[in-house]
Amino acid sequence: MNDPSTLIDHDVPAGVDLAPPPPLAPVEPAPRRTPAEEARTLVASNTVGGLGTLREDGHPWASMVTYGCLGDGSPVLLVSHLAEHGRNLARDGRSSLMVAHDRPGSEPLAQGRVTLLCEAERAAGELAERARAAHLAAVPTAAAYVGFGDFSLWVLRVTGVRWVGGYGRMDSVDAVSYSAALADPTAPGAAGAIGHLNRDHADALLAMARGLGGYPDATSASCAAIDRYGIDLMVETPRGPAPTRIGFREVAGEVVDLRKATVELAQRARAALDAGD
Amino acid sequence: MNDPSTLIDHDVPAGVDLAPPPPLAPVEPAPRRTPAEEARTLVASNTVGGLGTLREDGHPWASMVTYGCLGDGSPVLLVSHLAEHGRNLARDGRSSLMVAHDRPGSEPLAQGRVTLLCEAERAAGELAERARAAHLAAVPTAAAYVGFGDFSLWVLRVTGVRWVGGYGRMDSVDAVSYSAALADPTAPGAAGAIGHLNRDHADALLAMARGLGGYPDATSASCAAIDRYGIDLMVETPRGPAPTRIGFREVAGEVVDLRKATVELAQRARAALDAGD
Repeated sequence: MNDPSTLIDHDVPAGVDLAPPPPLAPVEPAPRRTPAEEARTLVASNTVGGLGTLREDGHPWASMVTYGCLGDGSPVLLVSHLAEHGRNLARDGRSSLMVAHDRPGSEPLAQGRVTLLCEAERAAGELAERARAAHLAAVPTAAAYVGFGDFSLWVLRVTGVRWVGGYGRMDSVDAVSYSAALADPTAPGAAGAIGHLNRDHADALLAMARGLGGYPDATSASCAAIDRYGIDLMVETPRGPAPTRIGFREVAGEVVDLRKATVELAQRARAALDAGD
Repeated sequence: MNDPSTLIDHDVPAGVDLAPPPPLAPVEPAPRRTPAEEARTLVASNTVGGLGTLREDGHPWASMVTYGCLGDGSPVLLVSHLAEHGRNLARDGRSSLMVAHDRPGSEPLAQGRVTLLCEAERAAGELAERARAAHLAAVPTAAAYVGFGDFSLWVLRVTGVRWVGGYGRMDSVDAVSYSAALADPTAPGAAGAIGHLNRDHADALLAMARGLGGYPDATSASCAAIDRYGIDLMVETPRGPAPTRIGFREVAGEVVDLRKATVELAQRARAALDAGD
């Protein structure tokens, strides 16, 4: 199910088996977001990140910032030169922005996060207009201080990307791929869809796991994630828990398409189960 | 109300007046947490932060980490040397940890955050035992990988601290003051107390604002923050909104003391209003 290129091998003590039980039936390959799409989606889904800059003595400096994004995914900061990170950027544009998936209550390291390697450019002229609009669209309260004389708009030009999707899922992304990729337009609806499916459609999820997910011995299934390309299930079996993924027939173009796509998936799963009886 | 040393002067355009309406009655000076206590409290209240490290080429690298703390407030990380930040720390211990107040739904820049300037030390021997216990106490799920051969415990020795309490409240803290300060023991109960006061005791909060907070013209008041030393109110008046702070008679030693302290405050406020009638 996972692309091996996105996996790393931890140095696991002998006797520890981390592998989930394998599927008992064939599973169709399910497309997923590319690492570049994952990174763009994560950055578009948040407005707060951890900024790394350099102090005058070369020591790294981590600070909190709010940001918006230009169309190519370049983060736009609005920082005061009275703040340490503002002085750092003015002296040396080398910087890095970390954005984490903001899902309260979940285990942090099981969630996605991304590190952008950046060169900061002070926005001037036409770029300043676009940067200002991008920042205010993401951080409306910045209107209260965007006019202060000590604040500057900085565009972080992304030169490299490291995406971590959770335990053992990660990849690097080059700057061109990052700027060309699209943020998943269904992401703003994912949390709502997951909650709805798990609350009200446990039977449909179980049918998906049994009929299409490769686990005919599933005893229950929950939706772990959903995106424009498909659905990730966590399946309980007598052999232990296992993840599986099923792709949508059609890529979802916007939030409202998630409903149609999951209904079609449930129907297809039940048809497969009926055919197998 | 605010200690001037913790304020900075933004470069505000002419004609913009950011000053709230002043109190109309004398207000007793109210103690507050020192910047060192604020920093320790923030770091103790969270287990996830943004780490700044240095790449081999000197470029800063921002990443997400989980952490626990030793008794002196030194954060303890558990990171894989397969991860970029693990390789960075092994090469150069200069690092920085940013921790933000984790209050969902609030405006990020109005909340507290702290930057720790650190030197990372790989934990060995007796220190490794304490570091392991500190990390696992804060991040129980780390038990699943603490034994992996590619993971190391790192103690971040704090060499300097920058605390930002929100708009315009900030200060620097030296390493000795940071390690000597106590995290506020009432902090885990603050959110619950604030919610309770604002939901069920609007009358008591208004009495506090009028009787003790210096705003006899208050029309309503809400609790913005509470700590072991006192309560921060946001007061509505016909002259505009204003913040005020009232100190407790006795410093609250634990979460349950917040209730007793606020009840005493409400009684004192009503007595002051009665005496003034």
